[in-house]
Amino acid sequence: MNSKPSAPPLPESFRNVRIVLSHTSHPGNIGAAARAMKTMGFARLVLVNPKSFPDAQAAAMASGAGDVLASARVVSSLAEALHGVTLALALTARRRDLATAPLWARDGAAELATVVAQGEVALVFGNETSGLSNEELALCSRWATIPANPEYSSLNLAAAVQLLCYELRIALGAVSPAPTFTAAGMPATHEEVEGLMAHLESEAVASGFLDPDNPRRLMLRLRRLFARAGLEKEEVNILRGLLASFRQPTGKQHRSK
Amino acid sequence: MNSKPSAPPLPESFRNVRIVLSHTSHPGNIGAAARAMKTMGFARLVLVNPKSFPDAQAAAMASGAGDVLASARVVSSLAEALHGVTLALALTARRRDLATAPLWARDGAAELATVVAQGEVALVFGNETSGLSNEELALCSRWATIPANPEYSSLNLAAAVQLLCYELRIALGAVSPAPTFTAAGMPATHEEVEGLMAHLESEAVASGFLDPDNPRRLMLRLRRLFARAGLEKEEVNILRGLLASFRQPTGKQHRSK
Repeated sequence: MNSKPSAPPLPESFRNVRIVLSHTSHPGNIGAAARAMKTMGFARLVLVNPKSFPDAQAAAMASGAGDVLASARVVSSLAEALHGVTLALALTARRRDLATAPLWARDGAAELATVVAQGEVALVFGNETSGLSNEELALCSRWATIPANPEYSSLNLAAAVQLLCYELRIALGAVSPAPTFTAAGMPATHEEVEGLMAHLESEAVASGFLDPDNPRRLMLRLRRLFARAGLEKEEVNILRGLLASFRQPTGKQHRSK
Repeated sequence: MNSKPSAPPLPESFRNVRIVLSHTSHPGNIGAAARAMKTMGFARLVLVNPKSFPDAQAAAMASGAGDVLASARVVSSLAEALHGVTLALALTARRRDLATAPLWARDGAAELATVVAQGEVALVFGNETSGLSNEELALCSRWATIPANPEYSSLNLAAAVQLLCYELRIALGAVSPAPTFTAAGMPATHEEVEGLMAHLESEAVASGFLDPDNPRRLMLRLRRLFARAGLEKEEVNILRGLLASFRQPTGKQHRSK
């Protein structure tokens, strides 16, 4: 791999994954696939008999993934592309005469993820129109299908690469439990929320909206709404300021600023 | 929808989903997005101010999804695109000053799937380079992020559409036929929420709390708070009733009951 010296090394599990494109017709799809791979953290591209490569269209579609194209290996057979691989997952849209039914893409990715620490694995994609040949499918040990509209299941090649790489990234555990919460404020304390509720209630009584002798469920409803939102300190301050502004001295229409 | 008479009708849950592309620069991406949508069973495309549409490049990239392009609606603002929607999920790659951290794409799709039987939902995608504006993000009630390589997270637009539609297709299949939204109320529509925001803003200006010449971020903050909560119809009615009660005729302190 000719990754730039400045690029951080890929985790071992990602380095063990190669993406194999067999007999690709449109060089633009090779570039778009390289971009899709790189967005998911994969860098090892192997091309089996591409119709045209290198190619200006591939470079154009790769966008910022030119390094993936530059380090791509070109080979003359799928057998050569799979050399050293312990598990190869082939994408197939069609139900063919396979040894076993294909897995869903998600389950196939999960299976690759279980063995990737032990050795190299491959995701294998066929020609845009004809897919993988029966001989090529037979070289792979697992087959996967992307769940799709039965009326129109023809995904673009790079879109299929994007989906499989996405599923494999998630299966490899590269996804942290939740994206980091950078800009939200401090949560309001229990007392601050209660202060707001009391303020809301007193103003609703003062305005006549809430009849204290027949309160029904108004405050309960408002509590539930704000509990769902999870109020922040600053939001409590804003809402109380707004409420206070509504309580005008008689005859005065605007607060001076 | 101008689907061909021969095409089987989409299931209700799929018909309730619109895919919104805002300010798309490259018409080829619109075509590729239409193809991605159709492979996952979605047909309703809404384009906000596309740079060029219809366009030969869009048609070429749509492949067999020309019907999706033919029935696409072109509108001039995201607000118009979201008319009638109860939940809009915006894709955002960047960590912005959002009300809450974005959901992962999978979790966002799961959330859309829980409400799609009750009303229309939208997946919203911004411009290829600049994404969605802060104003556009504020019009959406949820935000989602695709887990990606932090060194290179730039997915092609159509690839992002493919991933989100894929997740939503799976989520719609995994969700039991009728997840009842009854314990909670009916979700408020986009217009109802916007009506509340306009009401809040006009009252805040009238009370002097909000200086229209120096609005700062007040309305943005309030939008975020209520977006997090996910307002129900009845809650909007309660809040608007409460707001109206604060606007007393001068000298009259209590509403007669």
